[in-house]
Parts: sequence; structure tokens; C-alpha cells
Amino acid sequence: MQAFQVDERLDRDSQLLLDLALCQVRLMNDARWPWLILVPRRPAVCELFDLSAEDQQLAAAEANRVAALLKGLTGADKINVAAIGNIVRQLHIHVVARSEGDPNWPRPVWGFGTAEPYGAPERDAFITRIRKAFSR
Amino acid sequence: MQAFQVDERLDRDSQLLLDLALCQVRLMNDARWPWLILVPRRPAVCELFDLSAEDQQLAAAEANRVAALLKGLTGADKINVAAIGNIVRQLHIHVVARSEGDPNWPRPVWGFGTAEPYGAPERDAFITRIRKAFSR
Repeated sequence: MQAFQVDERLDRDSQLLLDLALCQVRLMNDARWPWLILVPRRPAVCELFDLSAEDQQLAAAEANRVAALLKGLTGADKINVAAIGNIVRQLHIHVVARSEGDPNWPRPVWGFGTAEPYGAPERDAFITRIRKAFSR
Repeated sequence: MQAFQVDERLDRDSQLLLDLALCQVRLMNDARWPWLILVPRRPAVCELFDLSAEDQQLAAAEANRVAALLKGLTGADKINVAAIGNIVRQLHIHVVARSEGDPNWPRPVWGFGTAEPYGAPERDAFITRIRKAFSR
């Protein structure tokens, strides 16, 4: 049986924050917008509907929990949730906090410009806030 | 209590195909890509996590069913599923069939160019195929 391993590009572009029951929660290294990614720890899964029925429900519950938490943390105007995967085929779910006036508002973040890496203090402070919110 | 009513812009840009237990399934009038939209028939809901826990599970199950069906109908390379809503705030879930070489591959469809309306025969044929797939 194939083991789960996070895709190389996801691994390079984002950092593991914590594990939920099904998904890794990762922070995209792009300070332009608060952007988390959920990666179900299942091998060889490309589409949401490739997951088992039980995992589909778990993925939705976890994505919605992360979205609500990110909304609470950021006070964003809108949370964007998406499973796209045209480039990186391993199933991953984007959860992005969007606000009026952000760099590509109201257009999507995907395929827009280039990532602006966090400074270490800013990143660490954000990660601490996220982890604290999850531990509540 | 407020009644559900589909947002004006969604109503203008898409056509109701059928009702699932929770969601309207609508066809976007854009022949560039097979593009369905699910609209939960709940008033005043903006984010997936604003739905009740039960409706969240139903929305995920219906979106995944529609995605699998669209993949089967189109043979697309990738299905894109997203709840964005930066412009139209009424909760709606995009389910888009993407193929290598389509007009904005591998970038997202949202915010790209302008819709190309279907010709009536092409649209009607596609609607018939979709309805048939759902009735199976």
C-alpha cells in the first residue's frame, strides 16, 4: 500500500502547522493574504470525490472549521475555499482570508503575481495565533 | 423569517437545472468550460460555515456528487470546486470541468475574460445530458 507523502511543491510553498483527524493544516508562505491549505493524509487522491464518503464529510468539516477560525482570527470580509489542483494534483483545499483592498480583490488569489514570503517574526506570531485558536 | 431567493446576478448568469435536497444546481451560461453552480436554498447565508452542521455535510455531499458527475460527463482533466463569493455574497459553490488547453488552463476561470454564451442547441443538448446523468 502506498504511503501518504505531501507533494514536493506544497511542501516547499507551505509549512505544516498541525494535524487534524484527516488533514494536515499548512500555512502558505505568502504574506499577501492569510492562506491556509488542508491536505488530506491519504495517498493518491486527486479529487474530493476520490475520498471515501466518510473522508469527504471529514474533509468538509475540517475545511469549514479552519475557515471559521481564519475568519475569526483575521476579521476578513470573505473566506475563499477551493479545491483546484490544476497544477499540483495531490488533493489540497485552499482556505484564504480575503479583504477589500487586498492585492487582487475581488479577483482570486490563484495565479496572481508571486508569493511574498513572510518575515520570520511576522510568520511566527501568526503561527502562534493560529495554533492557539485551534487549541481552544 | 426571510425566504430564500437566488441572487440577481447568479440568476442572470446561470440557469436552474434541478433541485437537490439542499442546493439548486445551475448551469453557467459560459460555453468556454462546463461550469455548474450549486446554491443552497437557505436565506442570508454567505460562508459555508454559516450553514448548520447538517447542511454543511449535505452541501459537501451534493458538491462532490455534482463534481463526480461532471467529470464523468466531460472526461475533464480536473474538476475545480470553490466557494469564493467576493462579488456575489450569497453562498454558491462552483464546480468547473477543466481540461489542458482550455482558455485559461491551468489558471482559474474566475475573473478571466468574459463569458461566451452558449448557442441554444448546444446548451439544450448539454442540459439534457446533465439531467439524464442525475436521473440515473
